[in-house]
Amino acid sequence: MTYCVAALVEEGIVFASDSRTSAGPDNIAMYSKMMVWEIVGDRVIVVLSSGNLATTQSVISLLKMRSKDDTGAPLPTGVLGVKKMYEVAELIGATLREVVNRERSVREHGVDIDCSFIMGGQIDHHTPRLFRIYPEGNFIEASPDTNFFQIGETKYGKPIIDRVVRYQTPMKEVGKAFLVSFDSTMRSNLTVGLPIDLMAYERDSRKVTYKRRFNHGDAYFSKISGIWSAGLRRAFAEVPDVPWVEEA
Amino acid sequence: MTYCVAALVEEGIVFASDSRTSAGPDNIAMYSKMMVWEIVGDRVIVVLSSGNLATTQSVISLLKMRSKDDTGAPLPTGVLGVKKMYEVAELIGATLREVVNRERSVREHGVDIDCSFIMGGQIDHHTPRLFRIYPEGNFIEASPDTNFFQIGETKYGKPIIDRVVRYQTPMKEVGKAFLVSFDSTMRSNLTVGLPIDLMAYERDSRKVTYKRRFNHGDAYFSKISGIWSAGLRRAFAEVPDVPWVEEA
Repeated sequence: MTYCVAALVEEGIVFASDSRTSAGPDNIAMYSKMMVWEIVGDRVIVVLSSGNLATTQSVISLLKMRSKDDTGAPLPTGVLGVKKMYEVAELIGATLREVVNRERSVREHGVDIDCSFIMGGQIDHHTPRLFRIYPEGNFIEASPDTNFFQIGETKYGKPIIDRVVRYQTPMKEVGKAFLVSFDSTMRSNLTVGLPIDLMAYERDSRKVTYKRRFNHGDAYFSKISGIWSAGLRRAFAEVPDVPWVEEA
Repeated sequence: MTYCVAALVEEGIVFASDSRTSAGPDNIAMYSKMMVWEIVGDRVIVVLSSGNLATTQSVISLLKMRSKDDTGAPLPTGVLGVKKMYEVAELIGATLREVVNRERSVREHGVDIDCSFIMGGQIDHHTPRLFRIYPEGNFIEASPDTNFFQIGETKYGKPIIDRVVRYQTPMKEVGKAFLVSFDSTMRSNLTVGLPIDLMAYERDSRKVTYKRRFNHGDAYFSKISGIWSAGLRRAFAEVPDVPWVEEA
């Protein structure tokens, strides 16, 4: 299982993803689910993926292969060349449809080959944008009202994001909320696990602002997990008792 | 959508369920999802249900119809007559299979007729037991190690229960945790909603110990929702900032 989340805020976009892939609890591997394309001063494009690993890897590989010519120069039709974020979303949707169509015989064997993507970033002087691409290849875009997307094992970690992450929330607060959200998810679903990749992109910087991997035993992550647990227990203790009147 | 939860603890068993039924967000009705059979001094049996309303209602109706004879006396083969909680679980599983089989033509029309039950209580001097009955009619039982079951929209509200509800937790604490769990669920899924039925059964009492419906505008529920939110925000503020070092 996977958990990925990203939020569009006033300051920029924050992304987080776990790195665990499993085809069952005894078959767990690690793959980064965060792909970053960066041309400093021109664009930063981040893709998070969830779902069938063969499908997501093929989509990312094709996007990569088609982004540069033989000399390594960006092709105008690839993710490093198109001029708008909307075109990047179209490109991912079309590539996803192509891979799913190519692998349809796998689906006929009863294998779930679906996957979802979150994609965001900024190209040139255009505004930063964040998209969610569905398994069918169509997509929706985040707005100040609906400013975050989650894919994969999304529910356990949603309540804290619902409460904290607004369009005006500073990126550092968003990053912290994402890590707390991962902590809740990992407690309830063992197939979501460390390491976690956290990445922040500051509006108009056109370079990666912040990127960090939280590995097993990471001191900060261990600390926040404990502090958050203790804080939750304190908050719970402050909730008044149920007005418990026994039946006659 | 529905959310139901129940926990077996040292003191007894606590149950909670919402009362919203929907066949889409514009078609929302209210049905209690908690059914209680009580013969004071002999037994208390509580059933929580989630899933297709036609199926769950039929199962409950058949259990009721088959519990008494024409004079109103308990039949030895019904929920009011059998001698063991295990037999009640078997009865529900068999009745569920019977209804699903009767309605299989509905399933052939592509309608999901599945449902799940949580059932718990105590008969006579036997120990209190708690079961989860699957859509296929088979069932599992709670134990001190795995002491709670959830059905329906379970994930949003699971983290707080994971952290708070142990076998040794007092019933009042469990009730509070259930209400907080409902608050989290209702914030993230609008099709789970008030009223909430909360019920507690104290071991060896063989009568309903506590039962309360939390309706729209309930003063206690509104208060705990606000206090819990404020507590969460405080707990979040106490979590140290992400060690945010910008990329060179």
